[in-house]
Amino acid sequence: MNLVEQFDCIFNPGGVAVVGASANQEKVGYFCLRNLIEAGYKGRIYPVNPRLAEVLGLKAYPSVRAIPGEVDLALVVIPAEAAVSAVEDCVARGVKGVIMITGGFRELGTEAGLALQDRIKDMADGSGTRIIGPNTIGLVNPRINLNATFQRALGSTKAGSVAVVTQSGGMYSLIIRSLTTHNVGISKATGLGNGVDVDFGELLAYFGQDDETELVVMYVEGLEQPRRFMSVAREVVKRKPVLVLKGGRSEQLNRATLSHTGALAGRYELYRAAFAQAGVMVVDDVTELIDQAKALAFQPPAPGNRVAIVSSMGGPSIVAADGCHKLGLKLAEFSEGTWQRLRRLVPHLTPVDNPVDIPWITSEYDVCREILAVIMEDSGVDAVIACVVPSNYSEGFTRAAIEIARSGNKPITQCAGPRSEMSEAQVNLLEENRIPTYPLPGRAVTAMSGLVRYGEILRAAG
Amino acid sequence: MNLVEQFDCIFNPGGVAVVGASANQEKVGYFCLRNLIEAGYKGRIYPVNPRLAEVLGLKAYPSVRAIPGEVDLALVVIPAEAAVSAVEDCVARGVKGVIMITGGFRELGTEAGLALQDRIKDMADGSGTRIIGPNTIGLVNPRINLNATFQRALGSTKAGSVAVVTQSGGMYSLIIRSLTTHNVGISKATGLGNGVDVDFGELLAYFGQDDETELVVMYVEGLEQPRRFMSVAREVVKRKPVLVLKGGRSEQLNRATLSHTGALAGRYELYRAAFAQAGVMVVDDVTELIDQAKALAFQPPAPGNRVAIVSSMGGPSIVAADGCHKLGLKLAEFSEGTWQRLRRLVPHLTPVDNPVDIPWITSEYDVCREILAVIMEDSGVDAVIACVVPSNYSEGFTRAAIEIARSGNKPITQCAGPRSEMSEAQVNLLEENRIPTYPLPGRAVTAMSGLVRYGEILRAAG
Repeated sequence: MNLVEQFDCIFNPGGVAVVGASANQEKVGYFCLRNLIEAGYKGRIYPVNPRLAEVLGLKAYPSVRAIPGEVDLALVVIPAEAAVSAVEDCVARGVKGVIMITGGFRELGTEAGLALQDRIKDMADGSGTRIIGPNTIGLVNPRINLNATFQRALGSTKAGSVAVVTQSGGMYSLIIRSLTTHNVGISKATGLGNGVDVDFGELLAYFGQDDETELVVMYVEGLEQPRRFMSVAREVVKRKPVLVLKGGRSEQLNRATLSHTGALAGRYELYRAAFAQAGVMVVDDVTELIDQAKALAFQPPAPGNRVAIVSSMGGPSIVAADGCHKLGLKLAEFSEGTWQRLRRLVPHLTPVDNPVDIPWITSEYDVCREILAVIMEDSGVDAVIACVVPSNYSEGFTRAAIEIARSGNKPITQCAGPRSEMSEAQVNLLEENRIPTYPLPGRAVTAMSGLVRYGEILRAAG
Repeated sequence: MNLVEQFDCIFNPGGVAVVGASANQEKVGYFCLRNLIEAGYKGRIYPVNPRLAEVLGLKAYPSVRAIPGEVDLALVVIPAEAAVSAVEDCVARGVKGVIMITGGFRELGTEAGLALQDRIKDMADGSGTRIIGPNTIGLVNPRINLNATFQRALGSTKAGSVAVVTQSGGMYSLIIRSLTTHNVGISKATGLGNGVDVDFGELLAYFGQDDETELVVMYVEGLEQPRRFMSVAREVVKRKPVLVLKGGRSEQLNRATLSHTGALAGRYELYRAAFAQAGVMVVDDVTELIDQAKALAFQPPAPGNRVAIVSSMGGPSIVAADGCHKLGLKLAEFSEGTWQRLRRLVPHLTPVDNPVDIPWITSEYDVCREILAVIMEDSGVDAVIACVVPSNYSEGFTRAAIEIARSGNKPITQCAGPRSEMSEAQVNLLEENRIPTYPLPGRAVTAMSGLVRYGEILRAAG
């Protein structure tokens, strides 16, 4: 079984065991079982608990070995000592993947914790079983309604094309739920916790080959094998973008990451340089991660950095232009033909320039479509940032933007103002049609800078 | 009538005229009248239109001079040439304030436009009438349900303590609606447009003395009288913070701001240095403006830059600490007494450090209150950033944070994850109790850096 087959099986398991399944509503073993059932996973679910005959209406088994049917995935939520022998059972039975949610290993910083973790590592090595964790939140595959985590809210994760891998459970939840809030769907996602076996490099290689994944998003505190990761990354980025947020930037923080998942964060600048050299896109914070992920999930990379701004509002277009200036994007200079065509389309009181201000005509579909088409066709324009807050008077612009975005290969991002009852329907329509929207102009620019950056990475990779 | 009395009267008018009120639902004169009525302004509203006897159920008058009752404020929405004589009428009648929504003046860049604007200026000078605009969106005072703008959505602006002044109508709308979305209320707000008469400096002086205003937020493209503004600012910042976003940063953009409100943006670096020297807080983009305004509206300034992070999630607390590092905030070092007290409170498996991770105990009010109290009482701590996503298991923490924030004078900001059905009630409860929440950790840090910065400004001002 190669890497792809193995992880395909783990993310699309033919049966899931929950070792430590509990009927006690305050226990993690209860959360995990309830979440699996509630999210609607269609395969068989096997509670494992030697003291119970049944949990939440499902027949329970005394051990993983005692389960009669197929078990591709096992969640382990019993205390560390006992968890080790549960892993032994899983290995013996040929379970493909074990998610060790249990903590109490290397992250304790004790010899006993480290020794237990080493025993798990030894069991996994050379076996047909891969171990995720320990000290992990678990994994989700929203395409098959699989919520194999202890967090209920992850059961409503939107399905899509973004793979997410994080060291931290908290960041896992924050990133996935933020993406879902922004209408961006997930292909597959897993927390790595202490990463005793499965690591970032392997998952990157897998997601690089996974047809359901078009973009890989990672939150990394430290890499165990940075060289291998970078060499995998250099290949993957030729096919799909890889976005990384690196946590733990100051020396002082190595202490915090150490107690978090037992990993040393290492020197931020070294990581940053290595990621950049490999074509990995390093973001500065989570907002940037979410905004660029949304753009990369929805829009093509930009062929260059020359941006046209189209706006129904004078001030926000100036703020967007300021954002471009700050991030190294250029305001496109239109050709003489473009000027002439625009002057015929834009109301005569409004001077034509870039930003192109089109107040009062966003209700007119034909004019808006023509303006956007003229701009997109200019060979001096690589991308368009729109600043139009959806309202009763902007449906024409919304339909035009969707039409133009569909037919072209230059990206669009849009500042659509804060979400409101008034804008909700059009924002959802835009995003169903893969135009990413942002509440404020600077964020639409940051998003576009991600599309420009990925275009540069692709061209550099030849 | 001094400055304060005059503007008090303009923002709390005893009667409002709409010159150009229309029954045609596609006209700005219709929008303005409808918005005034719909928002629920309790004073008298006088449509002015010589061709109609009645508009939207209200008796219409042929001119402002013909109105029998008190008129403190007039909105002018008729074309530029005619608007000039309407202003003449307002001056003659002693109307306190005229909002000239009409465009077609200096922003056209034509001699005719400039000449018309000069005529308005001459009329205003030395009269008892102040002119806002032309080419402005208007003003709102949500405390008296006054929406004197052409934008309907501004009628649901939340009332509160933040004054907003912008050059641009688009930025006006974006800022006010974003603040409302974030549970931050407005005291009074106005667009300035071309600023023929009323300017930033005067309004800053007024808001500095206005008891309903605790924070002033401005979007500035250019200042006509920068020296006067800075000298007013130096006094105001001793009593309340002043946040400015400066639009138009590159030389290329002076062209855009010129066609927008007829103002030259000027050199960004010069403005930035002058603002900073006057104690004005300059923000980098609108997200930062909103996030810091929210913090400054809700929380006291920080006595220093030493931050404790309290988190239910390992990864987000590391990301928050990274954010502190980047913005020059220090991770607080606890005293020995604090360590000892925390070790007794935090579950024994979790190492005690700053960030203080408290997973699994956010449901326990007593423990959370004690932890927060211990940290707040440490003289080495100036501020607390919490990373706790509200859920069924975090009500104890939420109540504790509210309790501690109420009794102390060190600020708190909180990363509460993306808004969801699950978090909504607790987020609103936190914000009703003046704890500002943010969807992602970096934004809670940016917000805190605003409170730290204002603390520094106050100490520098002595």
